[in-house]
Amino acid sequence: MNPRKILVAQGGGPTAVINQSLVGVVLEARRHRGVEFVYGARHGVRGIVNEDLVDLTQETSHNLELVAATPAAALGSTRDKPDLAYCQEIFKVLQAHEIGQFYYVGGNDSSDTVRIVSEQAQAANYALRCIHIPKTIDNDLVGNDHTPGFPSAARFVAQAFAGANLDNAALPGVYVGVVMGRHAGFLTAASALGKKFADDGPHLIYLPERTFEVDRFLADVKATHERYGRCVIAVSEGIHDASGQPIITTLAKELERDAHGNVQLSGTGALADLLCEEIKAKLGIKRVRGDTFGYLQRSFIGCVSDVDQREAREVGEKAVQYAMWGHRDGSVAIKRSGYYAADYELLPLEAVAGKTRTMEDAFISASGTDVTDAFRLYLRPLLGSGMPDAFRLRPNPVAKVLRR
Amino acid sequence: MNPRKILVAQGGGPTAVINQSLVGVVLEARRHRGVEFVYGARHGVRGIVNEDLVDLTQETSHNLELVAATPAAALGSTRDKPDLAYCQEIFKVLQAHEIGQFYYVGGNDSSDTVRIVSEQAQAANYALRCIHIPKTIDNDLVGNDHTPGFPSAARFVAQAFAGANLDNAALPGVYVGVVMGRHAGFLTAASALGKKFADDGPHLIYLPERTFEVDRFLADVKATHERYGRCVIAVSEGIHDASGQPIITTLAKELERDAHGNVQLSGTGALADLLCEEIKAKLGIKRVRGDTFGYLQRSFIGCVSDVDQREAREVGEKAVQYAMWGHRDGSVAIKRSGYYAADYELLPLEAVAGKTRTMEDAFISASGTDVTDAFRLYLRPLLGSGMPDAFRLRPNPVAKVLRR
Repeated sequence: MNPRKILVAQGGGPTAVINQSLVGVVLEARRHRGVEFVYGARHGVRGIVNEDLVDLTQETSHNLELVAATPAAALGSTRDKPDLAYCQEIFKVLQAHEIGQFYYVGGNDSSDTVRIVSEQAQAANYALRCIHIPKTIDNDLVGNDHTPGFPSAARFVAQAFAGANLDNAALPGVYVGVVMGRHAGFLTAASALGKKFADDGPHLIYLPERTFEVDRFLADVKATHERYGRCVIAVSEGIHDASGQPIITTLAKELERDAHGNVQLSGTGALADLLCEEIKAKLGIKRVRGDTFGYLQRSFIGCVSDVDQREAREVGEKAVQYAMWGHRDGSVAIKRSGYYAADYELLPLEAVAGKTRTMEDAFISASGTDVTDAFRLYLRPLLGSGMPDAFRLRPNPVAKVLRR
Repeated sequence: MNPRKILVAQGGGPTAVINQSLVGVVLEARRHRGVEFVYGARHGVRGIVNEDLVDLTQETSHNLELVAATPAAALGSTRDKPDLAYCQEIFKVLQAHEIGQFYYVGGNDSSDTVRIVSEQAQAANYALRCIHIPKTIDNDLVGNDHTPGFPSAARFVAQAFAGANLDNAALPGVYVGVVMGRHAGFLTAASALGKKFADDGPHLIYLPERTFEVDRFLADVKATHERYGRCVIAVSEGIHDASGQPIITTLAKELERDAHGNVQLSGTGALADLLCEEIKAKLGIKRVRGDTFGYLQRSFIGCVSDVDQREAREVGEKAVQYAMWGHRDGSVAIKRSGYYAADYELLPLEAVAGKTRTMEDAFISASGTDVTDAFRLYLRPLLGSGMPDAFRLRPNPVAKVLRR
């Protein structure tokens, strides 16, 4: 049975392709007879409880295509993490507007919101299809081979390290690049895909899946610097000590916590600066530079994986198809086959909601500071076509005249 | 008279297109009969004094083309700023290897090195053509409409702010992006080219050409935040108070100075963090995030202006043509005509060497926190083809049911 009205919203951190999923929902839903209105909520669940809804029914498909190719959340997003009372408010608004299908594009927290709203509707015996559409640059949703948004962010990180490695080779020293990822190291590990020649950086990669020891880190840097005369390092913002304490807290005086109770790791250059200071002070290396990739890695316009775009569009389309022809709520998931093809399935919301995936051991080298070929094989096809490549001169040395 | 041997080297901070200039020299020089060897010096002038030279004569033109499209200095670079004694060492090596032409790709400091080496050769009555080839992302060479490397870095900054603006619109708050540029604000000003709609950020732009007052800054941010519910700010790393003291020094405990006697402004997130702290503390705005673009803006692989590539290649080619058929040393400069075409001329080394260009008043708005249309007209053609564009939804609001 086709509903008369559907509602779509976007939650959590924006990505380069989240608008593809939005547009996938809108265009696919408008194809279905019976659907009279396609609504969007401004700034995710917050827009729903505030009844800040917009009508996407008359948006031109031409403009929708252009918006799809634009990064960040076109409807606006939110960091609100609804509790039961909040979800009851959401359901009240959906009911008042006679919404028959609710689509929420987001990460772990968003899938949990969809799960609770779905339960509310069932308890009230109200006919509502609730579908969660995956999105997160962290790649930390369980049940998915990978999540839309991650490939484009990974591409940015790989390209950034490919360039940083060339820069560091031209002006040798130590370079520390801090990458997003609170619990999952996928995005930091993507730095390895920027490596071409055997002596290219990143030479060392530090992931939140492994305990970070400052002494061990300094020894690694020292050994690499002695071997290559330089050292390029990728560090996850979420690195922590054996007790699980984030390394950044050892220096940050004041910790800002967001609404989810998480320490603020992004939007500050403190971790990179701390690590650089350690290297300068303890190893006596003079040229030590740190960059925090910050918001650039998720918001930069003009660095996107075409594979990611395609898949983000398809999870939106599939969501509508599952809702129209399926008989259950759920979370759309990406599955992999071959080398490489994507397919989709609808997982139960409980299978995804609130759970966090981290990097599989098979993706992390025994040293703990590199990735395996299995990870390279996993990530490479996701980065899409047209990846830039770096080339070197291969000249012969000229015999010395004065100093022979 | 064609020399038998020529030498080319690269100095200063790498750019996305400096290898275009290198390859322009090599390929053009190899065309000239009489030229038997094309040498390169590893790591700029340091490679010359160390006799660390390589032979580019047998490098394939195919690989040279691939290297040209690769960012960063393929021969390696250096931060050494030669004094007279150092330049005498350079000249000694050039003489020992019977070099007839010396090409140095670099910024202000490099042009001064070429000037001194040229004087040494004249004093010794040694036939040496010395040509400086312009390069700097700072765009601060006098006598040039703009410098190779700047357009690609400007494109990165414009794309970064276009994306940061979208991200900030999705999750409103204050965003501070710190951009390179010690004395010249061109690169920071390029952030304005990321703006499309009237209410897009960057809403405020702070340049080293204007005195930075913290109180004024806070008042600007407050007014913008009240007006738009958000605020995107571009800040040059070189902002300073009325006495010329860099703003960053007011917080940095330890200042690392490089060989040129300059304060280290890049490779640390301190300025962005300081400004964010000020905004949080004084304005009581909760969501305040800062990014320091750092090395990404000059080394990111895959963000390059095709106009910049073409011109960087041509300044290398033209350098060889001036050396072969001209009768004087000099610095190649880019001139502009029409809307838009580039042409080249050879300036006397003294006209360029050691001088610094800053942004013309006509490029800065009366408020001091924005650019003028003259600047937009100046920069837009340099960014090249295929600039990404951002699009918005234009939906109608849905009438409220519960809260009407």
